[in-house]
Amino acid sequence: MDFTKHCESIKAKDFKSPLAYAIARVVRGQLSGDVISLCFANVNYKQNENFYAILYDILGLKKHINDDEFFVSLSNDDLTKIVESFKSFGFGFKEQDLQGHENLKSIFYASQNTQNEFALVVLNADVKPTSVYSAYLKLHLISSHLPPHSLKLDGVFGLLKNLAWSGNKPYELEYLRQNKAKLMFSGEYPKIDFVDKFPRYLAHIVPDDSVRILDDSKVRFGAHIAPKTTIMPGASYINFNAGTLGAVMVEGRISSAARVGEGSDVGGGASILGVLSGTSGTPISVSKRCLLGANSVTGISLGDDCVVDAGIAVLEGSKVSISPKDLELLKAANQGAVFNGVEKDGVLIVKAKEVSGLNAMHFRLDSLGGGLVLKYNTKAVKLNEDLH
Amino acid sequence: MDFTKHCESIKAKDFKSPLAYAIARVVRGQLSGDVISLCFANVNYKQNENFYAILYDILGLKKHINDDEFFVSLSNDDLTKIVESFKSFGFGFKEQDLQGHENLKSIFYASQNTQNEFALVVLNADVKPTSVYSAYLKLHLISSHLPPHSLKLDGVFGLLKNLAWSGNKPYELEYLRQNKAKLMFSGEYPKIDFVDKFPRYLAHIVPDDSVRILDDSKVRFGAHIAPKTTIMPGASYINFNAGTLGAVMVEGRISSAARVGEGSDVGGGASILGVLSGTSGTPISVSKRCLLGANSVTGISLGDDCVVDAGIAVLEGSKVSISPKDLELLKAANQGAVFNGVEKDGVLIVKAKEVSGLNAMHFRLDSLGGGLVLKYNTKAVKLNEDLH
Amino acid sequence: MDFTKHCESIKAKDFKSPLAYAIARVVRGQLSGDVISLCFANVNYKQNENFYAILYDILGLKKHINDDEFFVSLSNDDLTKIVESFKSFGFGFKEQDLQGHENLKSIFYASQNTQNEFALVVLNADVKPTSVYSAYLKLHLISSHLPPHSLKLDGVFGLLKNLAWSGNKPYELEYLRQNKAKLMFSGEYPKIDFVDKFPRYLAHIVPDDSVRILDDSKVRFGAHIAPKTTIMPGASYINFNAGTLGAVMVEGRISSAARVGEGSDVGGGASILGVLSGTSGTPISVSKRCLLGANSVTGISLGDDCVVDAGIAVLEGSKVSISPKDLELLKAANQGAVFNGVEKDGVLIVKAKEVSGLNAMHFRLDSLGGGLVLKYNTKAVKLNEDLH
Repeated sequence: MDFTKHCESIKAKDFKSPLAYAIARVVRGQLSGDVISLCFANVNYKQNENFYAILYDILGLKKHINDDEFFVSLSNDDLTKIVESFKSFGFGFKEQDLQGHENLKSIFYASQNTQNEFALVVLNADVKPTSVYSAYLKLHLISSHLPPHSLKLDGVFGLLKNLAWSGNKPYELEYLRQNKAKLMFSGEYPKIDFVDKFPRYLAHIVPDDSVRILDDSKVRFGAHIAPKTTIMPGASYINFNAGTLGAVMVEGRISSAARVGEGSDVGGGASILGVLSGTSGTPISVSKRCLLGANSVTGISLGDDCVVDAGIAVLEGSKVSISPKDLELLKAANQGAVFNGVEKDGVLIVKAKEVSGLNAMHFRLDSLGGGLVLKYNTKAVKLNEDLH
Repeated sequence: MDFTKHCESIKAKDFKSPLAYAIARVVRGQLSGDVISLCFANVNYKQNENFYAILYDILGLKKHINDDEFFVSLSNDDLTKIVESFKSFGFGFKEQDLQGHENLKSIFYASQNTQNEFALVVLNADVKPTSVYSAYLKLHLISSHLPPHSLKLDGVFGLLKNLAWSGNKPYELEYLRQNKAKLMFSGEYPKIDFVDKFPRYLAHIVPDDSVRILDDSKVRFGAHIAPKTTIMPGASYINFNAGTLGAVMVEGRISSAARVGEGSDVGGGASILGVLSGTSGTPISVSKRCLLGANSVTGISLGDDCVVDAGIAVLEGSKVSISPKDLELLKAANQGAVFNGVEKDGVLIVKAKEVSGLNAMHFRLDSLGGGLVLKYNTKAVKLNEDLH
Repeated sequence: MDFTKHCESIKAKDFKSPLAYAIARVVRGQLSGDVISLCFANVNYKQNENFYAILYDILGLKKHINDDEFFVSLSNDDLTKIVESFKSFGFGFKEQDLQGHENLKSIFYASQNTQNEFALVVLNADVKPTSVYSAYLKLHLISSHLPPHSLKLDGVFGLLKNLAWSGNKPYELEYLRQNKAKLMFSGEYPKIDFVDKFPRYLAHIVPDDSVRILDDSKVRFGAHIAPKTTIMPGASYINFNAGTLGAVMVEGRISSAARVGEGSDVGGGASILGVLSGTSGTPISVSKRCLLGANSVTGISLGDDCVVDAGIAVLEGSKVSISPKDLELLKAANQGAVFNGVEKDGVLIVKAKEVSGLNAMHFRLDSLGGGLVLKYNTKAVKLNEDLH
């Protein structure tokens, strides 16, 4: 029978096209036996519906048709049956046959590693994640397919267990505690790289050839790193559900929920505040061609072509003064923007949150007087092309 | 014979109850043969005296009764004898018997790893450490049992050798130098993680389940990390003999000798100055519910409920102005505190060191005028509970 | 025949004494088969000419006499022939014979590892590098022999391939992409430490015994680290072609092309701006006994004995005010220096770039008025000797 026709026939009756799905290797805790981590080789987002139709048919997924999200174990039998089914439609499973067929690779190598445990994870809808399975799939999707904030991640901290990671392997802390003498005195205590609920981005994602991440500790799984992004190892960090949307030089912190656009430069030690603590909860976005100077702090959103000078903190409550000439230029660059503030001694005083998201702002320190001033930005920011 | 009675009989004559003791695996240098590192599975501080009494008896430690600190080698014979002695009192050494008996585990697994070298390290008193043995034991105790500054650590830099660490294994630099061609050209040159006199905290300590350390390079052995502390990987660092005393969010630097209390937030890139360089040598403590804003610098101690705004440096010599109203509120929050300074234009000008350690201070930048102002803090700092 | 005489006879006719040369283990990409990395055990800069003469003779390098730089493959035959040649002059190749003879070690261990690929890399002149071979040799020379800016490195980014590094082993990203399912589902996916064109300094260089580098991610290959330098793991970073020229405490960023002199202290989070982005392109040097305070930013060069206070940004365009008294002292400390600026209210206002490179400057914030002031520095900076 023809493969496409077969898939169409499955999809014709009681079928639900998934939002996303993936085959996962399941990792269980040494002591608890609980699922503590997952590894995906590839994930599907609104794509490869036919491959899913085969799984749907063989695994009898109709019973999950009304579930927002679910996972099913894949026994060796299941995996063999799926591989055989694809073979019957003429698909090859030699290494050269598999090139470019990521789902076939996943099902094939799962079937070849019978010592490991596998599962299928499916999202039918984007709801608050309810298991470590959907949490991992969503974090992977944001790292691989979707910009930050594209999927609901509420409560993800509660789903993930805090673990000690050695290489790519997670250990339950209580396991290390109970076996410390055995491991330490034989010289086999693992080198713990970090302790966290989240794995690291580079343990799960192969970045684009143009991406540089000079220290794997700097990017959490669930961060989104666009092509041509460079992440230096000084003071930088990119949290989950945050990241870059284009070529960005990152030497500072992109905290949870923050996004930085094409052509921008987050200078050494610069901080873009996040929503997890100490802020009003509004996610901050820095748009295109912005420069955040070394050790600057940004607590408001910036439009295109903005500069925050080195060492300056622009918080929501910071008062900045705008000269009449700069006000005119800023108004021209931001049609319809209202500059709420008070006039004093011929300049306009506004709180920084009032100008959040506007274009062409240059925040400077009056290095003689000491006050924060907001000027119209005349300098174009340009990343160094030679670095790529 | 009854175990407790036997111990009492040992302790009845010429016995010295130790301040601390532990069984260590001894690591020697590849070239020098010197002891360069130690590993403990567990350490005892004013506890488990009976276990020590058995060692005291079998190893004949009476000769060390007047030593402030000492170490003795544990031969395979010694280890076997000790295990046999415990067996004779009915102690079991199967895996399930050992659960919860950390010293029995240590002695048992030492006896099982005859290829490795073991020693007993004892502190009878807290004096300036005189060997790598007592240095390691004290650093471990501060990480596992005691807050910073609890033990004398003077001269510890001089006792530890600078080493190249690969995984948990230390190499003498001269060994790598002499064997570079051999190792490099066979592809066996070790991946060096760092070069330091101190190992890393996570190589020796299994933290509480509620602790997160997102990068092992960020915490030196000898740091003290209280439960519910989170250490982010951006610009943070916690030196030895420094640390947290409760749930703290750490995204900045807690330099040598500095302490941070329950509920405080050390913002991204924030620096708490240490005593090792560039300061007056007074250890800085930040008390409860304080917020150090992103890229702020704190060179004085803070009491409870203090805020240093993002980007601000409060050094001992920084002059800050206090309005009459804030002065009144600060005096009410700090009974008996004296605010030494000079009045000018209706505000009081004080040097920051004069208010070191007071509660409810909020250091702000007058973002229009540019000066540092000290206000009464009205905002409560609250860590995000969802992150745990 | 006598070894020296033999060498002299080779050097007597059509010989070119190389600027630098080294034997390299060659590492090729998993998919492309291209040379993606090299490992040197030792490199020679204007030294060991006789050893080179032997290679020159046996390998017939006369044809490269007019090449600015070149590399030749070393077959197992070549390596054996070279070893035999040295043996014929009485050189021994037992481990004890080789001590102190770094080139002999290189050639010997190359000959012993026939499974690996080796090459000779030679610089006859210092020109813009044209291959990954000369790029690696030059980066190594700056790390091992020469201060930053000593060799031409133009275009080095274009020669190096962006790679995923696991331990000391580089992977082509496309190889990981194609083999992700195979590696992930068998549990053999490598732990990626970083993704970069450059390897890390500690993968290639054994530092002096007095150097501490608390995190290998903090120093790129091609950085120069002088003895007694300490690099802390907080916010620090040293780029290639940048570094320290003496005992320096580094807790901040030394960006590309920047140099820091003996006795200086780069405080926590301090940034020395580089030439790669956002600056005028003039390399910045910080001379001896300078203190860059925590979270300060320096965009101009500093002479000896300068201080930039914590949290202050001194950029080329920053205006600073100098009192008449300080101006007099600064002039005395900087014979012949001209202070271009404008006088206002009895003080001189200059742009910071006008005083770039001068001695004894102390940049402070007038913490009441808020302006940047430049004073004569009266404090001596002293690194803590106990830390070594």
